[in-house]
Amino acid sequence: MTPPPAHGPADLVITGCTALVHDEGGRIGFLDDAALVVRDGRIDAVTTTPAVAGLRAAERIDARGQAALPGLINCHTHTPMVALRGLAEDLPAHEWFNDWIWPIESNLTERVVGLGARLACAEMIRGGVTTFADHYFAMDTVADVVEESGLRANLGAAFFSSQGPEGRAASLEFALRRRGAAEGRITTSLAPHAPYTVDDADLAATAELAREHGLMVHLHASENRAQTDNSLERHGRTPIEVLHRTGLLDVDVLIAHGTGILDRDLPVLQQGTGRIAVASAPRGYLKFGWDTTPVRALRGIGIPVGLATDGAASNNTLDVWESMALTALVQKSTQRDPAWLTARQALDHATLQSARAVGLGEQIGSLAPGRRADIVLVDLDGPHTQPVHDLAATLVHSARSADVTTTIVDGRILMRDRRLLTLDVPRIVAELGAELPALIDRGHGKRIQNYEG
Amino acid sequence: MTPPPAHGPADLVITGCTALVHDEGGRIGFLDDAALVVRDGRIDAVTTTPAVAGLRAAERIDARGQAALPGLINCHTHTPMVALRGLAEDLPAHEWFNDWIWPIESNLTERVVGLGARLACAEMIRGGVTTFADHYFAMDTVADVVEESGLRANLGAAFFSSQGPEGRAASLEFALRRRGAAEGRITTSLAPHAPYTVDDADLAATAELAREHGLMVHLHASENRAQTDNSLERHGRTPIEVLHRTGLLDVDVLIAHGTGILDRDLPVLQQGTGRIAVASAPRGYLKFGWDTTPVRALRGIGIPVGLATDGAASNNTLDVWESMALTALVQKSTQRDPAWLTARQALDHATLQSARAVGLGEQIGSLAPGRRADIVLVDLDGPHTQPVHDLAATLVHSARSADVTTTIVDGRILMRDRRLLTLDVPRIVAELGAELPALIDRGHGKRIQNYEG
Repeated sequence: MTPPPAHGPADLVITGCTALVHDEGGRIGFLDDAALVVRDGRIDAVTTTPAVAGLRAAERIDARGQAALPGLINCHTHTPMVALRGLAEDLPAHEWFNDWIWPIESNLTERVVGLGARLACAEMIRGGVTTFADHYFAMDTVADVVEESGLRANLGAAFFSSQGPEGRAASLEFALRRRGAAEGRITTSLAPHAPYTVDDADLAATAELAREHGLMVHLHASENRAQTDNSLERHGRTPIEVLHRTGLLDVDVLIAHGTGILDRDLPVLQQGTGRIAVASAPRGYLKFGWDTTPVRALRGIGIPVGLATDGAASNNTLDVWESMALTALVQKSTQRDPAWLTARQALDHATLQSARAVGLGEQIGSLAPGRRADIVLVDLDGPHTQPVHDLAATLVHSARSADVTTTIVDGRILMRDRRLLTLDVPRIVAELGAELPALIDRGHGKRIQNYEG
Repeated sequence: MTPPPAHGPADLVITGCTALVHDEGGRIGFLDDAALVVRDGRIDAVTTTPAVAGLRAAERIDARGQAALPGLINCHTHTPMVALRGLAEDLPAHEWFNDWIWPIESNLTERVVGLGARLACAEMIRGGVTTFADHYFAMDTVADVVEESGLRANLGAAFFSSQGPEGRAASLEFALRRRGAAEGRITTSLAPHAPYTVDDADLAATAELAREHGLMVHLHASENRAQTDNSLERHGRTPIEVLHRTGLLDVDVLIAHGTGILDRDLPVLQQGTGRIAVASAPRGYLKFGWDTTPVRALRGIGIPVGLATDGAASNNTLDVWESMALTALVQKSTQRDPAWLTARQALDHATLQSARAVGLGEQIGSLAPGRRADIVLVDLDGPHTQPVHDLAATLVHSARSADVTTTIVDGRILMRDRRLLTLDVPRIVAELGAELPALIDRGHGKRIQNYEG
């Protein structure tokens, strides 16, 4: 808690809320009747409501009956894929990729990418997400949507080795050109697709570029056990061992999924000198019948696990709140330990661990002075969230993404009282609808890749 | 589809929706631009919007952009336990029961039961639940709340053999006195707690009473694998074999949970001559680290599996919509089969199978002429439910309970445009809050039972 500032008027003051705060050890606590003071896009003070009674502010929000949380972070998604939400259901991964997603992705246009990204951003703002890490194609278009929507994002232009060296070069060119854009809300990554679609030489060159340019690498790896088994059979190495061998564990790397990480991978990950993190999207693993991310083992070696949704084509939703609840539930279930992954642990994954995963561990993920003012307000007055005996449990297990009323990024209000202020959903839906017949045509017989895991 | 009726004005006409309908084989389909005509608490016609253009009606709802579904059914809950929501978290079942729930339940008052049941009903109406099966104490108070709230319910007064024969007698007396109450919205069950708290003689006498009075029996059985193992060790019989031996499989019986049902139980269940059903509440099984209900095996022998939430003290929520999604996800996961438990199967569990489970297979669970008018309207215009490629998938995997805008039971609107019309949530929350300090006091050292599973 800091004293209220003495200098001029604030940009925004939020009063009357119960604020989720971290102590110096990163432990989660709650501050009742809290006030948040925002200046210049940052949290200037976290104090009490009476302490800011006389403070002048350009804007005030009375948040009584609500909790204030750091904005949620979607650590791995493919925003434009919302255009394919629900299109290919109840299928195994290889059919889903080969017969549906990769043929249809050969129809992608920048217009569809832009409309899909807009719709995805609207969904995420509604669900309390303030930052997302996107790994897809036509990322300049997505970057434009980040500018427009007001969200924060880490963007990576995906590439396959089948594109030749141009794929990697284009990913680098994008990463260098757009980093720092949108008043600094955009950070960038190099984005090789995965070790089974990008060869070792290409991965090693990517690691070298990451080191040279101070960029993060964001890729799929060890997505499921079958991929790990295939990698062992073909190359005698797990995907994690491939990352190690190609130098990717010695740069800052965000590994999507990791449900196929084996015990033998743990010491390999520990040897890595880079900032290594894993993004976990548990809903899709249930749906495909995969194992889930080994959160307990990763925690045991100090690797942060951020929450994610993957793309809506497989996951059906970009609901990070649900990812938080499912992480708690699925980890308890797979560990057969109801005392593991407590509500507070789940909130830790949703806040500080996710912030670290996307390379913003010092900028976001906590309501603390000096951090960016990425804040969500959550209504606790619904019958489904009452009574409140333990606010951590209420937030993780009873509250829902629909309880988010207000979403703020860099101090700018993107949704207020459930009204979106930067995106026009009916218009986006209508325009996207007009593109769908051409998008979902599979008559051409083309596909952008072949999934062999 | 039936022609619009020619006789006098309707009580309610809903137009412009996409209606979930069942064909004669029970398969799910969707009728676009549908109209539902309600008379005398029943669905009188399911037709097209143009066909009812000239029809007079006391009330009309324009439901464009919404789906109309049969109201959801919560097949096993303990409504008053919402008062304990989030109180005892991240604990194994035996600590949860012995150190928290059963000591606190010794403090229960009728006032707390009534307020808890009201809050639970508010939560369920908001989440599109129109019927619930409740198994708890002070059920006359819950029956009064059913009358007041407008919901439909099957109510059973729980008893233990530790109460002596009076427990069973009181359960019967309640069941006979309140069945048919609330203009027929209340049905009743005999409600022995479970085979590990009710002895075989008491269970056999219950079966006899059920047969004599034409009542259903609703009980916990084979809740988890440890219970089954304990039962085998102590009695040489599984809980399902105990039900068989005591005659409970030869009456209409609703078995809560059944996650400890073994392969050897399947032929035993098949031999039963009663209408046997199982209620599955998958969230709690994840949270306690249990197995889940063997839905595929039960389906294989023709036993309906209804959706449930259990009480909010363990489950944190009465969100049956979430139970539907989790049933799909967890079944795919445990079967390692992404093609199993499709979105349409999940909707089948949520509609006809749940209706059968609570003994109302001919009255509710389908939008069809002659059925009770228990209808919910679901907004499909949110960014998280767009675009719609496959409405079944949208409903199960993208929509949320918060998308329910309107809840109707027996043709009466209990929530319209998200406004509750029969219950005053702020008042209930305030009154319940005043009771909580006395409720959660465990200083007395009493408990109502001992959990040994």
